[in-house]
Amino acid sequence: MEYTISLLASALGCPFTGDGSRAIARVSSWQDADEKSLVFLEKSERPVDVSATARAGCILVPQVLLPPGRDSIISETPKLDFARAAALLAPRPQGKGARHPSAIVSPGARIGEKVDIGPQVVIGDGARIDSGCILHAGAIIGEGCVIGHGCILYPRTVLYPGAVLGDRVILHAGVVIGGDGFGYIFDGRTQVKFPQAGRIIIEDDVEIGCNTTVDRGSLGTTRIAAGAKIDNLVQVAHNVEIGRGVVIAAQTGISGSTVIEEFAVIGGQVGFGDHARVQAGAVIGSKAGILPGKIVRGGEVYWGVPVRPLREYKRLNALFGRLPEMKQELDRLKAITASLQDTIDKLERRG
Amino acid sequence: MEYTISLLASALGCPFTGDGSRAIARVSSWQDADEKSLVFLEKSERPVDVSATARAGCILVPQVLLPPGRDSIISETPKLDFARAAALLAPRPQGKGARHPSAIVSPGARIGEKVDIGPQVVIGDGARIDSGCILHAGAIIGEGCVIGHGCILYPRTVLYPGAVLGDRVILHAGVVIGGDGFGYIFDGRTQVKFPQAGRIIIEDDVEIGCNTTVDRGSLGTTRIAAGAKIDNLVQVAHNVEIGRGVVIAAQTGISGSTVIEEFAVIGGQVGFGDHARVQAGAVIGSKAGILPGKIVRGGEVYWGVPVRPLREYKRLNALFGRLPEMKQELDRLKAITASLQDTIDKLERRG
Amino acid sequence: MEYTISLLASALGCPFTGDGSRAIARVSSWQDADEKSLVFLEKSERPVDVSATARAGCILVPQVLLPPGRDSIISETPKLDFARAAALLAPRPQGKGARHPSAIVSPGARIGEKVDIGPQVVIGDGARIDSGCILHAGAIIGEGCVIGHGCILYPRTVLYPGAVLGDRVILHAGVVIGGDGFGYIFDGRTQVKFPQAGRIIIEDDVEIGCNTTVDRGSLGTTRIAAGAKIDNLVQVAHNVEIGRGVVIAAQTGISGSTVIEEFAVIGGQVGFGDHARVQAGAVIGSKAGILPGKIVRGGEVYWGVPVRPLREYKRLNALFGRLPEMKQELDRLKAITASLQDTIDKLERRG
Repeated sequence: MEYTISLLASALGCPFTGDGSRAIARVSSWQDADEKSLVFLEKSERPVDVSATARAGCILVPQVLLPPGRDSIISETPKLDFARAAALLAPRPQGKGARHPSAIVSPGARIGEKVDIGPQVVIGDGARIDSGCILHAGAIIGEGCVIGHGCILYPRTVLYPGAVLGDRVILHAGVVIGGDGFGYIFDGRTQVKFPQAGRIIIEDDVEIGCNTTVDRGSLGTTRIAAGAKIDNLVQVAHNVEIGRGVVIAAQTGISGSTVIEEFAVIGGQVGFGDHARVQAGAVIGSKAGILPGKIVRGGEVYWGVPVRPLREYKRLNALFGRLPEMKQELDRLKAITASLQDTIDKLERRG
Repeated sequence: MEYTISLLASALGCPFTGDGSRAIARVSSWQDADEKSLVFLEKSERPVDVSATARAGCILVPQVLLPPGRDSIISETPKLDFARAAALLAPRPQGKGARHPSAIVSPGARIGEKVDIGPQVVIGDGARIDSGCILHAGAIIGEGCVIGHGCILYPRTVLYPGAVLGDRVILHAGVVIGGDGFGYIFDGRTQVKFPQAGRIIIEDDVEIGCNTTVDRGSLGTTRIAAGAKIDNLVQVAHNVEIGRGVVIAAQTGISGSTVIEEFAVIGGQVGFGDHARVQAGAVIGSKAGILPGKIVRGGEVYWGVPVRPLREYKRLNALFGRLPEMKQELDRLKAITASLQDTIDKLERRG
Repeated sequence: MEYTISLLASALGCPFTGDGSRAIARVSSWQDADEKSLVFLEKSERPVDVSATARAGCILVPQVLLPPGRDSIISETPKLDFARAAALLAPRPQGKGARHPSAIVSPGARIGEKVDIGPQVVIGDGARIDSGCILHAGAIIGEGCVIGHGCILYPRTVLYPGAVLGDRVILHAGVVIGGDGFGYIFDGRTQVKFPQAGRIIIEDDVEIGCNTTVDRGSLGTTRIAAGAKIDNLVQVAHNVEIGRGVVIAAQTGISGSTVIEEFAVIGGQVGFGDHARVQAGAVIGSKAGILPGKIVRGGEVYWGVPVRPLREYKRLNALFGRLPEMKQELDRLKAITASLQDTIDKLERRG
């Protein structure tokens, strides 16, 4: 979808310089840009020789970096406005009501208007799919699932029966929602399965990356609140609660009943023990480990296994790297004190 | 499936109090309970004001916590009996012989009685599926696979050719069984693939979580023994042997030829080097790392990277946290010894 | 495919001893070997009593371990030649032009000669599949994808639109290529999605393990260069570049824009921050953590979180294990210096 620079700037609420009538069709990297591309300069970047390198049609740029003689949109949050521009130039796809003949839709399912149902999609009895959804090839929707308006399910997503999605949820290929939680009680001979009969609710505007798994509640509910974003290959266990706007990077694992409050930011490969709680706005660095039951205070940055405030972690890690010197110093002091002891013994005898 | 309290108590081998004729239909959490729900109180929990909070029809509860005036089943292992009751009230589903017309079953496959074959299931030539199995939508069974009685394969499970499952195995959505192991020999120019032509055997009553991958043997066999339970997104490499009743939490990875003996319990995100051995009954904490070839003694708890007995790990971790104080103390001692040295020098000169 | 020993030896460029006319049909482990099996002895192994244990038809063995009276092929790189022999005895499967009627191939797709298209494969508009490929059941090829000659896509692989594969690429079951990268900018209220519109290119002879995910570039390109080998459940983020012949073990995660140069070897469960660079030939041990932006020098072995050269890591880890003794020594020195201080005080007073 094309915009003139002036229309795009106006939609972003930003001023522009240069030829406002020029047409912009896409966002691009600097390398790939052509005359219909919008590119951006981050505030932190040093000014680049834009005249030499860029064929870009328009530059989103903070005032201080404004290049002379180029069509530009001026923004003090260029990366954010670039993302907004991208959403304008390439609006999120919407279903149009296409249904592939190979799809298997239970007669007992209720399908809203303008829902696209791709090849080999399977929709179970009693499921409800609201308007504008796109179900890509091979998505499998279990019985009684509810999918809100405008959701996109990429190929091979699986919803176990009864899973509930809000509006505009995006599930990437291979995501599994609502599998059994992992709970067994050892009876002395075998592992007896704890019931995994709870619910799974994924609220509006959540996006979940490829091959991530989210288990249903064992009893009770697993819930991912509105606007949370989850990367690839993440594991969300039974009865976990993830708050609004939380961001979780790839391969992180969250054990049962743990709560991550709103707008926390979680790095990759982090591991959470069960029944932990991360308070609102906490930031947890990649590969950190949170012990079961631990409460992580909000508004701070954490790192390490077990997790510690970043400043403390850095200090400890620095000292860890200086263990050889500490050991050496210790040995030296040992020798000195022994020698002092000798001298004092002599002095005492002399005395 | 409904039980009266007296029948349920009798099936569990437990006494009950109150109205034995009351019908119980499901297990529930306290929050979700209704008059047909069974709930439970763990032995370790403090007595709760059950009269105020619970609409539950029946409480599974240890004698010491028995609430007055409530229909209860008395158990000294309430969580275990709750799990058993759950299995009675909602028995595991069994195939009934339904076959969806979109399923593609090789004429050379042998399908037992009462096997449910869902939409778009693919069953290869020479495969054998025993009675009572349920193959959910999109499961793919390679050529020559053997699947025992009463197995449940959730949507989109993949069995590479020749995989062997015992009876009552449960594979959750996205599980891949029998992929090639990861082995290459560098010839100076390219990575030459080591043959991955071995077998994969999964014994009775194993349950494997969503998107977990289990590779076939390279030569020889990968084996998961009876009753082992494996969580989501776990990686089991070629020639691994997992013993009876072993429990492995999410995102753990087990390198080639490692052996985990029976009833070991493995946390999440643990990493095993190749050719390691975990002896029977060992417990390994989340995020631990086991070096290649390492033998982990049975009957103890381990933690850390590389893995150490828990007590030792805790002590080291505590000392790690005290490195700043140790450094400070070291600096203080350095100053003191220097000052002592001075004084002694003076004393000596004076002497 | 059978070879005589003499033909096999000749194909490997190795001498043989014994009956060169004997037919060999397969590679085997020692346990599973029969009279048509080739087995091998690694150079590092101690001589085994081959006469007692082996029914193998032929032994690939270094000169120094050559067993008397057995048909053998002599090789100073027996494991490598065993792998080569395996590729001769069981050549990689090639497509023959079979197309299952349930496959859904867009009329706008261009399919080369001798491409096998399995049940329920979906091929989108404008895709190009070159000759000799095998697309197993349920593979989904998005619009405009390009797949080179002789590729094998195992069941349930997913290629997002526009993904490009070179020749002889192998994707194992559940692999997802070209999903959206993970990038959001917080606008104070919601996480705004950064555009994920770049490319994904996987070059010749790459092999990728089950359920691994590789994201497309956000802007620009994610690239996996020729001959790289990636294990199961690995995460490759947007704009990552993986060099020729790189080997990456299971469950490793690579954050955005990180570069791993050619022939680096990466262990399992390693985590890379974004914009890091691993120079050619570096070896990174399992569970290591590489900080964002970090440059890891080539030709060395690394370990730990954050990553350190192996020798340094080993030394630090050994000292970590001796923290209790260091603490004890520190306490002892504290007591000694206090006692020395006392003595000196007395000497001074006496003086």
